[in-house]
Amino acid sequence: MYKATDAEIITIGDELLIGQVIDTNSAWMAQQLNLQGINVRQISSVPDSANEILLAIKEAEQRAGIILITGGLGPTKDDITKTTLNAYFGGKMVLNLEQLSKIEEIFAGYGKEVSELNRKQAEVPDTCICLVNPKGTAPGMWFEQNQHIYVSMPGVPYEMKTLMQGQVLPMLQQKIKSPPVLHRTFLTQGIGESDLAEKIETWETALPQSMKLAYLPSPGEVRLRLTIRGMEPEMAQSALEEQAQKLYAIIPKVIYGEGNTQLPEIVHQTMLQKGITLSLAESCTGGRIAHLLTLLPGCSAYFKGGAVVYSNELKVSVLGVNEETIKRFGAVSRETAEEMAYGALTRFGSDFALAVTGIAGPDGGSEEKPVGTVWIAVAAEGKVSSRLFRLGADRNRNITVATLAALHLLLKTLNEA
Amino acid sequence: MYKATDAEIITIGDELLIGQVIDTNSAWMAQQLNLQGINVRQISSVPDSANEILLAIKEAEQRAGIILITGGLGPTKDDITKTTLNAYFGGKMVLNLEQLSKIEEIFAGYGKEVSELNRKQAEVPDTCICLVNPKGTAPGMWFEQNQHIYVSMPGVPYEMKTLMQGQVLPMLQQKIKSPPVLHRTFLTQGIGESDLAEKIETWETALPQSMKLAYLPSPGEVRLRLTIRGMEPEMAQSALEEQAQKLYAIIPKVIYGEGNTQLPEIVHQTMLQKGITLSLAESCTGGRIAHLLTLLPGCSAYFKGGAVVYSNELKVSVLGVNEETIKRFGAVSRETAEEMAYGALTRFGSDFALAVTGIAGPDGGSEEKPVGTVWIAVAAEGKVSSRLFRLGADRNRNITVATLAALHLLLKTLNEA
Repeated sequence: MYKATDAEIITIGDELLIGQVIDTNSAWMAQQLNLQGINVRQISSVPDSANEILLAIKEAEQRAGIILITGGLGPTKDDITKTTLNAYFGGKMVLNLEQLSKIEEIFAGYGKEVSELNRKQAEVPDTCICLVNPKGTAPGMWFEQNQHIYVSMPGVPYEMKTLMQGQVLPMLQQKIKSPPVLHRTFLTQGIGESDLAEKIETWETALPQSMKLAYLPSPGEVRLRLTIRGMEPEMAQSALEEQAQKLYAIIPKVIYGEGNTQLPEIVHQTMLQKGITLSLAESCTGGRIAHLLTLLPGCSAYFKGGAVVYSNELKVSVLGVNEETIKRFGAVSRETAEEMAYGALTRFGSDFALAVTGIAGPDGGSEEKPVGTVWIAVAAEGKVSSRLFRLGADRNRNITVATLAALHLLLKTLNEA
Repeated sequence: MYKATDAEIITIGDELLIGQVIDTNSAWMAQQLNLQGINVRQISSVPDSANEILLAIKEAEQRAGIILITGGLGPTKDDITKTTLNAYFGGKMVLNLEQLSKIEEIFAGYGKEVSELNRKQAEVPDTCICLVNPKGTAPGMWFEQNQHIYVSMPGVPYEMKTLMQGQVLPMLQQKIKSPPVLHRTFLTQGIGESDLAEKIETWETALPQSMKLAYLPSPGEVRLRLTIRGMEPEMAQSALEEQAQKLYAIIPKVIYGEGNTQLPEIVHQTMLQKGITLSLAESCTGGRIAHLLTLLPGCSAYFKGGAVVYSNELKVSVLGVNEETIKRFGAVSRETAEEMAYGALTRFGSDFALAVTGIAGPDGGSEEKPVGTVWIAVAAEGKVSSRLFRLGADRNRNITVATLAALHLLLKTLNEA
């Protein structure tokens, strides 16, 4: 028997099934639904084929009362979601004038005429509520039938997000009044999943029935998510708080933050709060640290800039690393890392500077310094501290983990300052 | 009726259903299966719950003969995939000594003892073929029942990839001899999806029945994927080639490459082939261009480094941009972009230099220069050329699109050099 307050997500597109595109929509949608206490039972990706779309919808109907669909709404021939849904709900197509004027507006912005193909984008089945898309040409569609809600949205992430936030989530909120789910997520680092599990085993085993703990490992960190269901918000909050206090008492140094925030955001907030400026000197992380920080609006308040010094020449000319240091200790060494940090600090005129130099791989390793050897240094107030990390053999993973390790070291130094 | 040579992918994990983790495994697996001519019918994500896992498996059995499962194999209590599969196939658990010695080896590398939890990781049902995991503690499992193949693998991407490449794909290759699917993917830029569709409509309509065209739009570019099925490889190749030639004749300047390669990789290959060195001067892209290039092994052969000059001071001190230029024309202007590129070229000593300055948003826009205004400049051999882009209001998207636009401009200049 399906549950009216459960949801399923169906993403449509041949590109998903041949793996040309990673489905990032579902995770975002699931997050938003969870915040409203709506449980996602299953996420399915199916091709641009009427049979497969209908089969997926019918299976989802067995389990969930809310079915959210993205994709297959483009103007081209391969996109068939709209006609498939129209046939399923037995309607006929009508022109939505509000969407049409949006389309005209969008095209006017590019100085172009609306083509016939794009004019057709404004047509929707007369069996749906049209969700006018302010960011694109394809409108969303809201159907209701046999106590089920079906919402179809474009697959373009920012169009889908705009429709979800502006229309779908508020409309669902009105329809569904499900008991809330509360999560509390603890961000840990410096310890592997199974060591962590052993450290907190007694606590975990003693958790009340209403709570569930999940381990969410990713390269460089493990998140612990504690979930409580079906309890009044205030009671749930205090039950979570009670368990959180116990957990902090067991692993005080391992938890560096909470919530869905990512580490770059925590660093970003800390920099802003402390009013401290930052510069970067990146070798093996190749600009990834700068990239992650500059994704966040408002970073210009503290971020002065950085150097990506891949070649030794640039380590010397841009950061003022001593040529002798590189010759004697190597480009990947405590000495070079510290001079890079100091160079960034003084040359870029920031309060703090973070430097990373390492061997990301696959080449460049030696017996003494294998691939994965990374030195990270933080300079502040005339002092430089540094740490050695021994990561693995995978280039991509090394860049990711070195980036996180560097941000962790920076955060630790900031919090001690 | 299920098709023995079709596959389904099931990814398991509560973290997927609450959207804390994006499923990147499925896209990669689907790509690999497609290359072997195995069609993926559906991708499903289900929670760490025995009922939901079994339901998903039973639905998948209706459609496909090959069922690939990832996730839920960790050592902790929330991971139940192994016990669920063991119950489904009616076996009992046995210790796999080869996996155990891998586990011991991994722990020895960290200088640690194998805990009881991790020792248990080496147990597998006696109904499966154990796929020893060289990169982690959880082995893969290969089951066969009623003409179906079921493979369970860990959810950690690099462990799953190692098992797929080393064992699963070769084993599938032996079992399944399906007619190949061939794809040819054309990478286009500088034109929207619907304009593109109109330009190539006559060609598209005249495509033979055996072919299917898909539009794969993403911010800044549209990929066109032409697929042919059920034909002998040689004939299929020449049929695709015939259509490709027609397509090139219609939109010669719009196609900048082919295949599954991404733009950074094409730039990377071109730099390597031409033996030209590169440096970067990034403002609004904040290190993203450097990051994308340095993800690729071997980039140190041409990439000298770059400056992320977020503040105006650094534009002046690191790149030698004239203070007067910034005062008179602004930090986002043709003049500043060109001086940034020229500064990188001369100060970093590279053959080519690429510079980007723009207003990513959400703040910093004005009437004359709204959010999304981006200037990109390329300097080479004493010449500097630049181009203005007017992007949208979304910070993330602007950074992505500006990065692609910059790499496109660089590629164009490289190809003309």
